[in-house]
Amino acid sequence: MGAGRLIEIERRGAFTTIWLNHPDKLNVLTAALMQEMTAVLEEVAASTAIGVVVAARGRIFSAGHDFSEMHGATLAESLRLFGICETMMTRLRSLPQPTVARVHGLATGAGCQLAATTDLAVAAEGASFATPGGKGGLFCTTPLVAVGRLIGRRRALEMGMTGDPIDAATAREWGLVNRVVPEADLDEATDDLLGRATRGSLESKAIGKRAFYDQIDLDLEKAYALASGVMAAAALIPESQEAITAFLEKRPAQYARPAGE
Amino acid sequence: MGAGRLIEIERRGAFTTIWLNHPDKLNVLTAALMQEMTAVLEEVAASTAIGVVVAARGRIFSAGHDFSEMHGATLAESLRLFGICETMMTRLRSLPQPTVARVHGLATGAGCQLAATTDLAVAAEGASFATPGGKGGLFCTTPLVAVGRLIGRRRALEMGMTGDPIDAATAREWGLVNRVVPEADLDEATDDLLGRATRGSLESKAIGKRAFYDQIDLDLEKAYALASGVMAAAALIPESQEAITAFLEKRPAQYARPAGE
Amino acid sequence: MGAGRLIEIERRGAFTTIWLNHPDKLNVLTAALMQEMTAVLEEVAASTAIGVVVAARGRIFSAGHDFSEMHGATLAESLRLFGICETMMTRLRSLPQPTVARVHGLATGAGCQLAATTDLAVAAEGASFATPGGKGGLFCTTPLVAVGRLIGRRRALEMGMTGDPIDAATAREWGLVNRVVPEADLDEATDDLLGRATRGSLESKAIGKRAFYDQIDLDLEKAYALASGVMAAAALIPESQEAITAFLEKRPAQYARPAGE
Repeated sequence: MGAGRLIEIERRGAFTTIWLNHPDKLNVLTAALMQEMTAVLEEVAASTAIGVVVAARGRIFSAGHDFSEMHGATLAESLRLFGICETMMTRLRSLPQPTVARVHGLATGAGCQLAATTDLAVAAEGASFATPGGKGGLFCTTPLVAVGRLIGRRRALEMGMTGDPIDAATAREWGLVNRVVPEADLDEATDDLLGRATRGSLESKAIGKRAFYDQIDLDLEKAYALASGVMAAAALIPESQEAITAFLEKRPAQYARPAGE
Repeated sequence: MGAGRLIEIERRGAFTTIWLNHPDKLNVLTAALMQEMTAVLEEVAASTAIGVVVAARGRIFSAGHDFSEMHGATLAESLRLFGICETMMTRLRSLPQPTVARVHGLATGAGCQLAATTDLAVAAEGASFATPGGKGGLFCTTPLVAVGRLIGRRRALEMGMTGDPIDAATAREWGLVNRVVPEADLDEATDDLLGRATRGSLESKAIGKRAFYDQIDLDLEKAYALASGVMAAAALIPESQEAITAFLEKRPAQYARPAGE
Repeated sequence: MGAGRLIEIERRGAFTTIWLNHPDKLNVLTAALMQEMTAVLEEVAASTAIGVVVAARGRIFSAGHDFSEMHGATLAESLRLFGICETMMTRLRSLPQPTVARVHGLATGAGCQLAATTDLAVAAEGASFATPGGKGGLFCTTPLVAVGRLIGRRRALEMGMTGDPIDAATAREWGLVNRVVPEADLDEATDDLLGRATRGSLESKAIGKRAFYDQIDLDLEKAYALASGVMAAAALIPESQEAITAFLEKRPAQYARPAGE
């Protein structure tokens, strides 16, 4: 088990959990925490971990941005802060491994954005999600980039304009999370989903994940041009050929797994 | 209470309701009505209203385009008519205030488009929504621009190709409306949602609303570039700084409210 | 009733059913089958059929790509194979007639992509849908182009990464299919939906369908520019003017129907 000041890395067999570890401050996303997170993501990306959980210590998942860092900020300082946040979110999304957010308590503002940026998410029954800036003085513009791409845009505007939280069941109905379970089952359900998401060839999955994000915002013609090229090439890598050969020989396929697994 | 011939403006405290007021013709969207609506929207945009309801007098919300205006039209006349419609819809979407459609009876064709163009929508239990041109002779191509961005595209094609109406419960399930209530509660539910959507800083919300629409059709990289820049700048406006200072001082924030409220 | 080797064309009154007809091989999408399908689609596009069903003989809808054709393939061969698939999917989507997939058993991989590429879909209660490559060695990158545009992207990533199938009820809840019915009612439900989708002017619908696909991936401003131009012009075609005149004269409209109907 590695340990940072604000982020804790826990290696559990083939999976790594990245813990937001600032429970006294409700895991508020200070610049320091986000920069530490970005460094941790670099480290995890290069590690032998086959799947990644993003979780949080303490009572809630994350309270979002740290207002004190915006107090009296210049435009340059403010741009730097949101740039640090964008870098962290972008780095998380581009991790080669499948990622799952494990959400309990509350994910609000940039904390909700973080929970919306992993590939998949599991929430405890009591969890709620909010982009509350709209009922205050600073609309949650960047969180709604991530949230607005998972749920319908009228629902995203409702969250953004009212600032009211939605409960876990609604988050599941709207496609913001994949699973909702009793809090006691949260670890098990998160690992079950991540286990399902990390079967087979990890290399193939990393290629496919990147291509998915690259194509999904394109128009259909460009999306197919990209996806056909990627998939045609991916079919030739040794792990794809192993899958194909094993299928034709009616035997289980053997994929490279890291030593630690 | 202001009054036009085809559109009626009702100022109710801090909210303004824009009434389609041509009940004898089922609030059909004639060029005259749409141009009056566009002028009214300009007026409301510049007013001290903090939130806007779009509603309709009579038995139904709106029957959509007026076929008689297309009868024997030249291409220039037809382009002008659809241009007037597009201008109205675009003007509605760019209103700085949060907007809610209050839908009863039927919203069909361009009437459905209108109900899909406000930021939020509340429907009476008995309301239905349709893009019926597909079962006749003029496919609802422009209404499906708005409707198709709120519901899944296969659902939008079903509405467009069959022309069959969907009921209010389905509209809610698909993300076309935010709330469905008994018709007797429609005014109250609309005001409740608009009340929630107009808390806090109106200036911040206007900035956030515009940024939401600007980013949501972009690819993710461009969306973040835009959103980070907007939010970083928005954090510096006095109302955001008031929110931040109040939070740090653990006191309620004070936001500018129009005199009329 | 026409007949190919791998694809069977069944003309039933005004509708044509295109049958995947390789049940011994679970309707696997070999290059030969996809090329035959593309040729059949050209033929059907030019025919008097007013609506098209895509269905499959045997126990399941389709098992997707034929792994044996990728075994030991060069990049040129692999690109050719995925190009053949893309051509078929693109040709299907651009058919002027409304199209409905009739799905039973299992639609998996490129078979799921095929079921996601028609305009509409009806599934038997026992049907399931999967993009299983992610749990093996070849991620379903191209199937997720089609599937990812119908369901939320987090749901699409769950299907892609876990490879687990979803049942028909979930497919309906997520917008992947329009109707789910007992298998015994599958033909009737498919024809009922296609019947609803083929009322009115076929010419108008073909124009509208194309415009829908052309606009839905654009940003809103460009989408309206395209849609307003198309609809303004479409209002002038004789069938639209017939719809308009009939409405104004309070009589049923008469639309051109093919002789065979």
